[in-house]
Amino acid sequence: MTFAVKSSDPHHPLSALDDLSVAMKPDMANVNALILDHMQSDVPLIPQLAGYLIASGGKRIRPLMTLASTRLFDTTTSRPYRLAAAVEFIHTATLLHDDVVDESDQRRGKPSANTVFGNQSSVLVGDFLFSRAFELMVEDGSIEVLRILSNAAAVITEGEVLQLSIQSKLDTTLDQYLKVIGAKTAVLFAAACEIGPVIAGQPDSVQKALRDYGHYLGMVFQIADDLLDYQANESELGKNIGDDFREGKMTSPVIYALENATPEEKDFWKRVFEDHHQMESDLETAKSIIMVHKADQKAFDLAQSYVTMALQSLSVVPDCSLKSILENLAFFALNRKK
Amino acid sequence: MTFAVKSSDPHHPLSALDDLSVAMKPDMANVNALILDHMQSDVPLIPQLAGYLIASGGKRIRPLMTLASTRLFDTTTSRPYRLAAAVEFIHTATLLHDDVVDESDQRRGKPSANTVFGNQSSVLVGDFLFSRAFELMVEDGSIEVLRILSNAAAVITEGEVLQLSIQSKLDTTLDQYLKVIGAKTAVLFAAACEIGPVIAGQPDSVQKALRDYGHYLGMVFQIADDLLDYQANESELGKNIGDDFREGKMTSPVIYALENATPEEKDFWKRVFEDHHQMESDLETAKSIIMVHKADQKAFDLAQSYVTMALQSLSVVPDCSLKSILENLAFFALNRKK
Repeated sequence: MTFAVKSSDPHHPLSALDDLSVAMKPDMANVNALILDHMQSDVPLIPQLAGYLIASGGKRIRPLMTLASTRLFDTTTSRPYRLAAAVEFIHTATLLHDDVVDESDQRRGKPSANTVFGNQSSVLVGDFLFSRAFELMVEDGSIEVLRILSNAAAVITEGEVLQLSIQSKLDTTLDQYLKVIGAKTAVLFAAACEIGPVIAGQPDSVQKALRDYGHYLGMVFQIADDLLDYQANESELGKNIGDDFREGKMTSPVIYALENATPEEKDFWKRVFEDHHQMESDLETAKSIIMVHKADQKAFDLAQSYVTMALQSLSVVPDCSLKSILENLAFFALNRKK
Repeated sequence: MTFAVKSSDPHHPLSALDDLSVAMKPDMANVNALILDHMQSDVPLIPQLAGYLIASGGKRIRPLMTLASTRLFDTTTSRPYRLAAAVEFIHTATLLHDDVVDESDQRRGKPSANTVFGNQSSVLVGDFLFSRAFELMVEDGSIEVLRILSNAAAVITEGEVLQLSIQSKLDTTLDQYLKVIGAKTAVLFAAACEIGPVIAGQPDSVQKALRDYGHYLGMVFQIADDLLDYQANESELGKNIGDDFREGKMTSPVIYALENATPEEKDFWKRVFEDHHQMESDLETAKSIIMVHKADQKAFDLAQSYVTMALQSLSVVPDCSLKSILENLAFFALNRKK
C-alpha cells in the first residue's frame, strides 16, 4: 500500500520534507527566531507552556509552505518570516485547544500540554498565541494577508465544531468528512501557500494555484493521518494509536468500512461509537473490519486523488528545484509513516 | 458606601448606562444586526451557542464605548459599527473561555454556556467568535485599529494567565492585582474607547485621552465587580455570589483584609484559599473579616481614585451631553449593584 520507491535515494519523494527543510534552512532560522521572540511574556507560564509545545519537534510544515510559496517567486524578501511565524502560532494555538477538546494525553510523543500544565492554561496560552499571530500580521501590514488568515482561522474552528457535532454518528457521509478535514486542516495549508504569491505580487491566477495546491496537500496530509490512526506503530507516530477510534471520530477508513458492513459489523460500530462501549480488543477488531472491506485501500486511493490534484495545481508554476520538492511533498504526505 | 443620590432623577449618575443606551440606540441597532449576521455559520451549533450568550442580556458596554467615543467627534460615520461588533465578539470569546477556565456554572443569571453546551463547544465557539472579530476588523481595513485590538487581545490572555498563576496565593500584592485587572478587563475598555478618535481622525493626544478614560473606567468596573462578589444579592447580580472566594481569586477586598490580619485570620485565609478547604459558612466569615478591617471601604476608595482619573482624562474633550454621560458612567461603574 506504499509507493514502490526506496528511501536510500536522497531525492525521492519520501525525503521531500527533509529536502524542503534543507532548502529553506536559512529562512527558517529567521522564522524560528521570531517564534521564540514573540512567545515571550512577563508571565512566565506563557513561554514555558508555548515553548513546551513549540520546541517539541513539530515538523513546521506550514511555515515551510509559506516560505517555499514565497521563494518560488521572490528569493530576497524577508516578508514571509513574520507571516510564517504567524501561521505556526495559529497552528500551535489550534493544537493546544484541540488537545483540550479531545482530552488527548499525548502529542508528538510527549505528554500533551494540557496533561502537564492543565486545561485552563492550555486554553489561555492558545488564545495568547492566536493574538500574537495577529500582532505579527499587523506588523507586516497587509490587509490582504490578514483577510486570508483571519478567514482561515474562522473556518478552522467551524471545522472543529462540525467534527464535534458529527462525532460518533454512524450516518456521517464522506462529503461531511471531507468538509470537516477541508476546514480543520486543509484551509491553513491553503492559506500558508497563498500568502507567498500574494506578498510576491503574483497575479490572482497564481495566488489561486498555490492556494489550491495547499488545500489538496492538506487533504492528503489529513487523510493519511486518519489512516495512520488504524495502521501505524505507536512509538513511531508520536501520538496514541487508536485515538480517533476511542474518540469516535468518523474518518474515511470507518466511513468506507460502514458502506458494506454486515449486520454484525454494524452492531459492532454502533456499540463502540454510538454507545461508547469499548473493550480492549475492539481496536484490533476495527482494524480487521477495515482491512476486510479494503476500506484502508479506499482511503489511500482517496488521498492519492488529492495528490493528483495538488500536482495539477502546480502546473502554472515555472519548473525549478523548489517546485519539484513541492511536488514530491504531496507523495511524502501520502506515504509517510508518522 | 454609595453616593447619596436618588435614582428617581433620570439624569443622575446611576442612570448613565441607560442614558448611554438611549443616546446610542440607532447606532446600536446597526451593531446588533452585524453581530447577529456574523455569528451565523453552516454549523448550527455555532449560532446556537453564540446566540445563547449574546442574547442573554449582556450590557454591551464595550461596543457602546466604541460608538460613544466615535460620536464625540463624528456624528455620521458608519465605521464604528463593524468595530463595535468586533469588540463585543472579543469580549464574548473571552467570557466563553473564562467560564471554561473558572469552571463557572452561572453567567448573567442563567446556566453558563459551558454548562449547557459543554466545555469543548465553548472553547471552539470562543475561537470562532475571536476569528470573526478579526474578519470584521479586516473588513474595516484599518491596520491601526487591528494593531490596537490584536494587542488588547494578547494582553487580555496574559492577564488571565497571570490571574491563574497567582490564584490562591496569599502573598499576592495590590500591584499584582492591579496588573491582572488592568490586563484582563481595562485593556479592552481602553481599546474600545481608543478606536473612536482613531477612526474619527483625531490627534494622538485625543486618542490617548480616550484610551486612558477607557482604561480607568475598566479599572472602576472590575474593582466594583470584585467588591460585589462579597456584597451583592445573588439574584440581582446574575452570577453566583462568592465565586471569586470559592475559586481563590486574590481580589482587592481580600488583599486589603490580609494587610492587618490577625494570626487566626491568616489561618482562616490559608485554609480556605491555599489549602482549598472551604465550609458552607466560610463565605460569611470572609465577609465579616473584610468588613472588620474596612477592606471593602478601601477597595471602594481605590475604585473611586480611578473615577477621578477617568474624569480628568476626559478634560480634553469639548463639553457636550455625550461627554456628561461618559463622566456619569464612571460613577455608575463605581456604584452599581449588579
